[in-house]
Amino acid sequence: MSIPTDASGSFRRRGPHFTDRIVAEPEGDGQWPVEPGRYRLVVSLACPWAHRSLIVRRLMGLEDALSLAITDPIQDERSWRFALDEDGRDPVLGYRYLEEAYLARDPENGLENGVSVPAIVEESTGLLVTNDYPQITIDLGVEWAKYQRPGAPTLYPEGLRDEIDEVNEGVFHDVNNGVYKTGFASTQNAYENAYTALFARLDELDARLENQRYLVGDHITEADIRLFTTLARFDAVYHGHFKCNRQKLAEFGALWAYARDLYQTPGFGDTVDFDHIKRHYHQVHTGINPTQIVPLGPEPSAWLEPHHREELGGSPFGDGTPPEPLAGPLRPLPPLDM
Amino acid sequence: MSIPTDASGSFRRRGPHFTDRIVAEPEGDGQWPVEPGRYRLVVSLACPWAHRSLIVRRLMGLEDALSLAITDPIQDERSWRFALDEDGRDPVLGYRYLEEAYLARDPENGLENGVSVPAIVEESTGLLVTNDYPQITIDLGVEWAKYQRPGAPTLYPEGLRDEIDEVNEGVFHDVNNGVYKTGFASTQNAYENAYTALFARLDELDARLENQRYLVGDHITEADIRLFTTLARFDAVYHGHFKCNRQKLAEFGALWAYARDLYQTPGFGDTVDFDHIKRHYHQVHTGINPTQIVPLGPEPSAWLEPHHREELGGSPFGDGTPPEPLAGPLRPLPPLDM
Repeated sequence: MSIPTDASGSFRRRGPHFTDRIVAEPEGDGQWPVEPGRYRLVVSLACPWAHRSLIVRRLMGLEDALSLAITDPIQDERSWRFALDEDGRDPVLGYRYLEEAYLARDPENGLENGVSVPAIVEESTGLLVTNDYPQITIDLGVEWAKYQRPGAPTLYPEGLRDEIDEVNEGVFHDVNNGVYKTGFASTQNAYENAYTALFARLDELDARLENQRYLVGDHITEADIRLFTTLARFDAVYHGHFKCNRQKLAEFGALWAYARDLYQTPGFGDTVDFDHIKRHYHQVHTGINPTQIVPLGPEPSAWLEPHHREELGGSPFGDGTPPEPLAGPLRPLPPLDM
Repeated sequence: MSIPTDASGSFRRRGPHFTDRIVAEPEGDGQWPVEPGRYRLVVSLACPWAHRSLIVRRLMGLEDALSLAITDPIQDERSWRFALDEDGRDPVLGYRYLEEAYLARDPENGLENGVSVPAIVEESTGLLVTNDYPQITIDLGVEWAKYQRPGAPTLYPEGLRDEIDEVNEGVFHDVNNGVYKTGFASTQNAYENAYTALFARLDELDARLENQRYLVGDHITEADIRLFTTLARFDAVYHGHFKCNRQKLAEFGALWAYARDLYQTPGFGDTVDFDHIKRHYHQVHTGINPTQIVPLGPEPSAWLEPHHREELGGSPFGDGTPPEPLAGPLRPLPPLDM
């Protein structure tokens, strides 16, 4: 996998190529109508950006309205592939590679920013609709209201949007993308700058969470989901593989208790797949782990330890309710092919 | 640096090539006389095997009897070199590379097992006398008695030698060399076997140290020195770089308090050089860290936290006394060239 860095050795994340939206009331070009049964959400369980959409789909109870495809955690030179499915093809789209949807939509330039998940594909045509990950979760929470389950929480409440956006901005640059900037830096200086910004932000978040259960307001919001998917991968991958090693997440106080609290909330821990996560990062990034050996540690059992965050007040779903427990595992558990 | 692994992908450590000894009463071939001012100890501060001899030299007060050369922590294709010294030459031996002493002694086969530290070189001839690291520390403790400082401890007491040897045997295979077997494994299976043996042994040592201050008897022995030099590198290098990541040393109970206790004992912490340690492993092993980026973490300040091990009884030096504080740093601190 080639990693794009600039002249200073800093990692540059490429933006999404397809920024259409799926909305309740489409207006003009680039807006598609919300419609149950029409679209398919493609994710990798390894990917923190895709993981967000998986959590939101589940919290909102959109499983019947929006179908789900799970890619193999190991990309090859054609990127994400449906190698876990029978005959290596997604049973609905018929594709072997997600790039086929990108090229169906834009044969000329569809791959110019790479192939990323999450991606939403129109089932009947196989066209890529959007891979705009920050917009996808907002729209699943807001625009799909008509098809959400009773008791679905409000993840992006109108009165808190400015504050959520502001928190998200810092978390994106320094944490979500910050761990990648740390791990993909090709110079010592670029690495140290990213590391310093990452831990400064984590310290700030740790202090913020001392006395409040969630990042913004009294309930889970979009801000918590975005932070969680990075924290879930921190000790398993980023601490060692990306050299984010001032300390483990498990060596923080409030931040670690906050992460455990979320993990133990339906929709969060039950969408974390440490096997896919660890195999993806360690086997795909041969530029930083050429042996492709996957570390055995750390023990994930610590995620289930008591967190005592209820004492801070707040409630995860506000006036809403938690989603039902998962009926089964997210995927058939394949044998570890190591 | 090429890493020797066998057909199963397991790392194989090569033994020392030069197994002569320096003893109080030489008898026949391969035995050299103890004599102050005659020999030079060559170490790298990065290397745990060499670090042992540095600790023993200091605990025994042999600084005036046995001179010291410190190599650059970064080996090149000719291995350990005196790049920290003026003109890149050891001022006593005149060598640029330690291999010159190996070849002076054995021009034909001197390099067949590689170049390793610690190594003892005769100053007047430049001949390599021994690179037999387990014997070197024993002999510095026992054979050099006549030149040791008043109050030097007994590191290898006669009544405890069997027990010390037995502990050392398990620590060598599973811990000292075990971390290398874990980090240098070239197959997932070889990695997992080494990791499992490593943490099983650490668990056993942790339990052993619950109720006793030192590994064998009531005072510091050779056994503690051999375990310490691996523990000192555990969180800084082995946890991430060698994927020894079931947990950090700092996440153990007794074992971590034991390591801090030793670190805070004169002769131990004052011979630990985290800069040399971190740069050596991360910059030399390009087969597992091709970017050569050196992690900034973890924070070393935790080594100075209280350990409360005095409560277990025992005393570090028995009837002896601690060595005097170091008069200055082990080396001039060079600018970090990153």
